Amino acid sequence: MDLKSKALKVHKDNQGKIALHCKVPVNNKEDMTLAYTPGVAEPCLEIKENYNKIYEYTSKGNLVAVVTNGTAVLGLGDIGAGAGLPVMEGKAVLFKSFAGIDAFPICIETKDVNKIVETVKLMEPTFGGINLEDIKAPECFEIEDRLKEICDIPVFHDDQHGTAVVTLAALINALKITGKRFEDLKVVINGAGAAGTSITKLLIKSGVKNILICDRTGIISKNNSKLDFNKKKLAEITNKDNIIGTLKDAIKGADVFIGVSAPNVLTTDMVKTMNRDAIVFAMANPVPEIYPDEAKKGGARIIGTGRSDFPNQINNVLAFPGIFRGALDVRASQINEEMKIAAAYAIASVVEDSELNEDYILPNAFDLRIAPKVAESVAKAAIETKVARAEGITPEWVFNHTVELLKK
Amino acid sequence: MDLKSKALKVHKDNQGKIALHCKVPVNNKEDMTLAYTPGVAEPCLEIKENYNKIYEYTSKGNLVAVVTNGTAVLGLGDIGAGAGLPVMEGKAVLFKSFAGIDAFPICIETKDVNKIVETVKLMEPTFGGINLEDIKAPECFEIEDRLKEICDIPVFHDDQHGTAVVTLAALINALKITGKRFEDLKVVINGAGAAGTSITKLLIKSGVKNILICDRTGIISKNNSKLDFNKKKLAEITNKDNIIGTLKDAIKGADVFIGVSAPNVLTTDMVKTMNRDAIVFAMANPVPEIYPDEAKKGGARIIGTGRSDFPNQINNVLAFPGIFRGALDVRASQINEEMKIAAAYAIASVVEDSELNEDYILPNAFDLRIAPKVAESVAKAAIETKVARAEGITPEWVFNHTVELLKK
Repeated sequence: MDLKSKALKVHKDNQGKIALHCKVPVNNKEDMTLAYTPGVAEPCLEIKENYNKIYEYTSKGNLVAVVTNGTAVLGLGDIGAGAGLPVMEGKAVLFKSFAGIDAFPICIETKDVNKIVETVKLMEPTFGGINLEDIKAPECFEIEDRLKEICDIPVFHDDQHGTAVVTLAALINALKITGKRFEDLKVVINGAGAAGTSITKLLIKSGVKNILICDRTGIISKNNSKLDFNKKKLAEITNKDNIIGTLKDAIKGADVFIGVSAPNVLTTDMVKTMNRDAIVFAMANPVPEIYPDEAKKGGARIIGTGRSDFPNQINNVLAFPGIFRGALDVRASQINEEMKIAAAYAIASVVEDSELNEDYILPNAFDLRIAPKVAESVAKAAIETKVARAEGITPEWVFNHTVELLKK
Repeated sequence: MDLKSKALKVHKDNQGKIALHCKVPVNNKEDMTLAYTPGVAEPCLEIKENYNKIYEYTSKGNLVAVVTNGTAVLGLGDIGAGAGLPVMEGKAVLFKSFAGIDAFPICIETKDVNKIVETVKLMEPTFGGINLEDIKAPECFEIEDRLKEICDIPVFHDDQHGTAVVTLAALINALKITGKRFEDLKVVINGAGAAGTSITKLLIKSGVKNILICDRTGIISKNNSKLDFNKKKLAEITNKDNIIGTLKDAIKGADVFIGVSAPNVLTTDMVKTMNRDAIVFAMANPVPEIYPDEAKKGGARIIGTGRSDFPNQINNVLAFPGIFRGALDVRASQINEEMKIAAAYAIASVVEDSELNEDYILPNAFDLRIAPKVAESVAKAAIETKVARAEGITPEWVFNHTVELLKK
């Protein structure tokens, strides 16, 4: 049976992928008086008195909403909120499998930014965190920014930040091999959507000084008056010399190419013009910006893609489970840049120096060491940047807690 | 340990009552390619092509949202959406335990009717049904009416209809004992809120001709100009003779008293003025309108309350799990009056004639025969009233399906 038929069968045989698990039994009258009336009135009253107790007496603290409006689902585009549900259920399954997080899909049937923001905000009491998923740019930026502003719980658009964190992790280890430093790099990012934007910001925060971003029309520069709001902001923080041109112009002398764009846009000849020890992360899916063998022919030393059938898969699942695990455990009010960078270094650290090589810069997704390390580092960064609110929770506790959850 | 401490301990030890269960494993690369990318694209595309396939490939068809805004939680009143979460989680646990339904709490932080309606409507793609819970009257009526109008899935306010269905079930069996007929009854309903309103409508639909409803100010009548919109509608369908007076006046000669109101409002002396073989359902919780021994002293023959420590507990859990089970299984577009009445007769039928007596008019909540019978009858009514949309699903299939689910 081919992949397509198998995938349909798995979904159909199980009628979807998620179900409810009850942590308390209701097998008899006494169970019911405790889990439901009249006993349930007690935790309600405790929470009414002191809202923070909602984290003690309910599942909120371990519940993440996976929110989409279905406008940018995988590479399929705008397929609608309902048609996106299989992906959101899948994401929930990954949250649970990789970090013991109880995630739940919320498919919102609208493209109206105001309505999405309001809907998520109104549902906030139920959840400990919000994972935005597969919402198209540029709406995703405004939705996330506004929700971060008004919500008391972490809001994280995984297509932006998950990708950025794993890209940074890959780059950290690639630089160990090539012996280059962030501050000396020339980086070209192709694609100025959700992922490209977040990667840019995270690289700058990590010390990269020289970034050129290209979109379909060429290098993004302040001189271009046709840029939308998001790209204008990107133009302000990149391309200091106001270079004008195409990807072909941009790539000359670059140390790093990061593609979050479209199939086959990078050629072997373009790679040949890059600096020595070139790093190429071609993440378009399923067909990358350049196939690894073509990039190799052009002289690239380290190549990553979004695919699991080539070495160095840049896969969000390395990041988001541990990031949320750490954020939830310390009850962080947000997931800030420091926490993301900490996550990237934690992911990179799972590949030990003795194992590190051109074809192994990122750990395997099923390496059980990842989530505990990421969660621990994220918790530590949250505590250090004073966004953690749980009392008495240490990074070590978070590490052990995550290990325990993964044993289940 | 007392009930209060035990209840708090159960909630704290488990950090709430609900978690995610994954129906498909993600233990290796191949699992991931099926449950997530790239395989997950296939069900997405199938659903995009034909929206009905969402019921085949996702969990939607078995997912019910338990929606509240926390304005009328148990007997605690307006405690806020978040403080209501333990009840909503408890309700979810009951849905799962009593009918294999995957319910999920959605606590909406607003009292604005428009916003609640919009939020629920926008989330519709994820869910197969909506259970409204603990939303205060009169807002609950408008919210439900409007959602029923615009949603393609069943919307059911359990505080109204669940209570009404079980009350009707109790009355069906009480009449078997007393030999009275619906059309000859004089019924007094004390309380014109969510439950009182739905009970009134369901009794009328079941053949009761003579109903008086009392609120705090006395018998609801068309002559009273101060009635709100909901009570005006109730005045139009009850109290044909425009009787004015108090509960004490109303109760004279009544065959049935149904209390969904406040503690101790019915006295032994008032019961003494009722007709022979009086039926008293005093459902205020935890202190009923009249305690069973007092009602007995007044001559009542059959007495029910909302409490599990007296005979004849009128408990919604007899109804909502099976009702939703039946509605979901035949993919009903709504839960109409016929389906509710069918549910009531199904509940009543679980008590066999040979066992039926004054102290046993309703089955025990843990009687595993209830949900399959209710689901079967509800499915049958849905099919007969042409609101069922699943092809080839018979009431017998629904019965067997429910039995199977309860074995798990």
